[in-house]
Amino acid sequence: MESESIDSPDMSNAEFAKALERVSDWIVSYRTRVGGLPVLSRIQPGDIEKALPSSAPLEGEPVEAWLKDLEDIILPGVTHWNHPGFMAYFGITGSAPGILAELIGGAINTNGMLWKTCPALAELERVVLRWYATALGLPDWFGMITDTASTSTLVALAAAREATGLDVRQEGLSGKPPLALYCSEEAHSSVDKAGLVLGVGMQGIRRIPSSEAFRMHVDQLEAAIEKDRQDGKHPFAVVATVGTTSATAVDPVREIAAVCRRHGLWLHVDAAYAGSAAVAPEFRWTLDGCDQADSLVVNPHKWLFTPIDCSALFTSRPDIFRNAFSLVPEYLRTDVRGAVDLMDYSFQLGRRFRALKLWFVFRHFGTRGIAARIREHVRLAQELTSWIDAHPQLERLAPAPFSVVCFRVHPAGMEEEPDLERLNASVLQKVNATGEVFLSHTKLKGRYCLRVAIGNLQTNLERVRRAYRLVCEAAGIPATGI
Amino acid sequence: MESESIDSPDMSNAEFAKALERVSDWIVSYRTRVGGLPVLSRIQPGDIEKALPSSAPLEGEPVEAWLKDLEDIILPGVTHWNHPGFMAYFGITGSAPGILAELIGGAINTNGMLWKTCPALAELERVVLRWYATALGLPDWFGMITDTASTSTLVALAAAREATGLDVRQEGLSGKPPLALYCSEEAHSSVDKAGLVLGVGMQGIRRIPSSEAFRMHVDQLEAAIEKDRQDGKHPFAVVATVGTTSATAVDPVREIAAVCRRHGLWLHVDAAYAGSAAVAPEFRWTLDGCDQADSLVVNPHKWLFTPIDCSALFTSRPDIFRNAFSLVPEYLRTDVRGAVDLMDYSFQLGRRFRALKLWFVFRHFGTRGIAARIREHVRLAQELTSWIDAHPQLERLAPAPFSVVCFRVHPAGMEEEPDLERLNASVLQKVNATGEVFLSHTKLKGRYCLRVAIGNLQTNLERVRRAYRLVCEAAGIPATGI
Repeated sequence: MESESIDSPDMSNAEFAKALERVSDWIVSYRTRVGGLPVLSRIQPGDIEKALPSSAPLEGEPVEAWLKDLEDIILPGVTHWNHPGFMAYFGITGSAPGILAELIGGAINTNGMLWKTCPALAELERVVLRWYATALGLPDWFGMITDTASTSTLVALAAAREATGLDVRQEGLSGKPPLALYCSEEAHSSVDKAGLVLGVGMQGIRRIPSSEAFRMHVDQLEAAIEKDRQDGKHPFAVVATVGTTSATAVDPVREIAAVCRRHGLWLHVDAAYAGSAAVAPEFRWTLDGCDQADSLVVNPHKWLFTPIDCSALFTSRPDIFRNAFSLVPEYLRTDVRGAVDLMDYSFQLGRRFRALKLWFVFRHFGTRGIAARIREHVRLAQELTSWIDAHPQLERLAPAPFSVVCFRVHPAGMEEEPDLERLNASVLQKVNATGEVFLSHTKLKGRYCLRVAIGNLQTNLERVRRAYRLVCEAAGIPATGI
Repeated sequence: MESESIDSPDMSNAEFAKALERVSDWIVSYRTRVGGLPVLSRIQPGDIEKALPSSAPLEGEPVEAWLKDLEDIILPGVTHWNHPGFMAYFGITGSAPGILAELIGGAINTNGMLWKTCPALAELERVVLRWYATALGLPDWFGMITDTASTSTLVALAAAREATGLDVRQEGLSGKPPLALYCSEEAHSSVDKAGLVLGVGMQGIRRIPSSEAFRMHVDQLEAAIEKDRQDGKHPFAVVATVGTTSATAVDPVREIAAVCRRHGLWLHVDAAYAGSAAVAPEFRWTLDGCDQADSLVVNPHKWLFTPIDCSALFTSRPDIFRNAFSLVPEYLRTDVRGAVDLMDYSFQLGRRFRALKLWFVFRHFGTRGIAARIREHVRLAQELTSWIDAHPQLERLAPAPFSVVCFRVHPAGMEEEPDLERLNASVLQKVNATGEVFLSHTKLKGRYCLRVAIGNLQTNLERVRRAYRLVCEAAGIPATGI
């Protein structure tokens, strides 16, 4: 029996080499010109759907055809997180070493579900997470790389639920006392989502009020735990945040840890954004008390120059994760002594070679280079802070300990919140329409504010000045101080 | 205030272009020589940990240094899923277009949590999933790309739990009736893991016996549902498998769907491996009845030439997913009409540009090219099947409808299972030690068997013959028939 004709199962080496060259050229060109493109895509919903065929081609097409569509159809629909004017959400940045690693990882295309299925993946993950923990001043905990902080927090809180001893793994949650989970009102929505998935329910998620500096009130945390106990609830975990999403506030982790110890609760720390600051010695305080945590998440794809996705989950109690998740069917049994199979610590089985990019990032920049770049981002944010603070018609709405500044335009005499919100929303809309920068907004204690987040390697003082000027222009106020 | 000196925030364009060239050369070389490397890594646990420094470098190092370590330290620790002799688990394969897309995705480094944060990502995901659904003969359902089938199944079963109307989202599972979830005894472990995470508990997961062909017994499914109802349990979902992990059996989906309809249960189909076969018209039967499902997962990173990770989750009931997961904090509120924000349908917020690789794969191969390659994999497996069936000392232990063959060495007179297991485990060990092929094992109805899974684009008839010969040699029997 002969095979039907397939000219070549994949591209030939020569074709592939040529395509790699073309794509490499495109990427270098893209990185060169991205600062001149509009940050925020200007297409309308449906534009790309309409521009592409409704079904896949029957026959293959040459690489030139897809690269042309990439340039003509896809690129205008990209919001450029690589743009030096991207200052929304958390400004993030890939980097050359990270991109090279994604290329290599795609080519090696291995799946590290078991140690045996790619020992290099399992061991490099161990090595780079040790490097990372050491650079952050954390203990040499067990670590694993997941896709996002949402997953890391979900996995950690599943372990926390396991640690209750209620045997939810075997018996399920029905018939158990209602669980209660604590975080501050400023915690990320991923905590709620984890609570939903785990069957805790919104009613079991307590959002503890925060101080004027947006840090969790520890006395109110403890009071809530005690009240829940009296009411027959079963408190099981606290999520402390190091760098809240809106204001980058740092919860008092050491005090929260003491509460957790007193009440036998799991402490998970969400340091997804701000944790990486601790690579710089003067920001080591950021993770103060975190050595008392049971688990901690910090995302290299946020502020460590690593392309998305890459989230690091550390824990001092890996055995609990194993108890929560390990489940080895026959077809995955191995007999390798001394090997750690990462699938045993999470619900995810397939696992790509993400450690490569973190490794390349550390080797290219070195910890001193990383610290210098983080320091520079903070410096830029502090410059902006100083202009805002000196401006009579601008009002800062939160401390700015890192590289994020929350503020609003506040003309003399305008005191009604709805008026201020309308004004600032309109300023935001005008600024973003320029395409030169992209800012986002949030609300702090009910007050609408503009949010500038600096985290891109290409952002410089000139671009921050420009952002400031654009805000002032949109608000019709002078751009003083710069 | 002046910045401290950072020579260049990232590699210069010239350096980066040169590094891309070096890495491209390395990749082309790797792809050329991978077939001559040992498939299964031969390192011992700890070898790579010992070979690398225990902390990150202080100062950056040149790209040559990391690439040298990649070659000398990392590569020997890689189990080569790219190797044409990789026939373990599910043989998978990346492809040139997929690798190019990973490179571009890493460079664009966008996060599609909202439509607005990368419209191209959201819309291309919609377009390629429509292409995929159409190619598989599925309805034009709502779809989203996740990392792995484990995540897809977890998200789908969270939606199923939401569809019960028990308001688990708000109230949690405590105080609700015990949930029950059904799948066959041959279903993947990810179903159990989803059940654990969701708070169903192992006691709530019913593994329904399967037939001699490893297909779920539908009458026993229905009996189990009825019994659970009588016992005060709350049945909520059935997972049918299209291509079970061990034997690639296809559950009778249409009949299972009828049971689900009768009892008001959610039907999730796990077609992670075999679903893609339906791209070939003669395998369209594979997904028969799946149009009746509420959700279905199929993984392009398994049998659609797409680098890991890429899992497609389709659903006819996207509103239920939204009800289960949507939760929009102020800082993520947008005002774009007609746009779908993918974060509302899952617990994961961050989302990388995975649609690119699926797009490139379709455009490079075309659906005919994809079908031809799947057909070829099945043909190779059928050849192997014919040699096994004709061999008096080999015994096939399951039907082989796709590209996976389960069999064992069975010498005349050896009838005790422990003896057969010992013999076959030893054959497996010897075959894998050659480094020419890598097979895995499983148990079917308690019988230990060898498992050959063909799914790599570079696997050809010669390599399959070699695998067969190696098994026969290791067992000390003649390699007849080839």
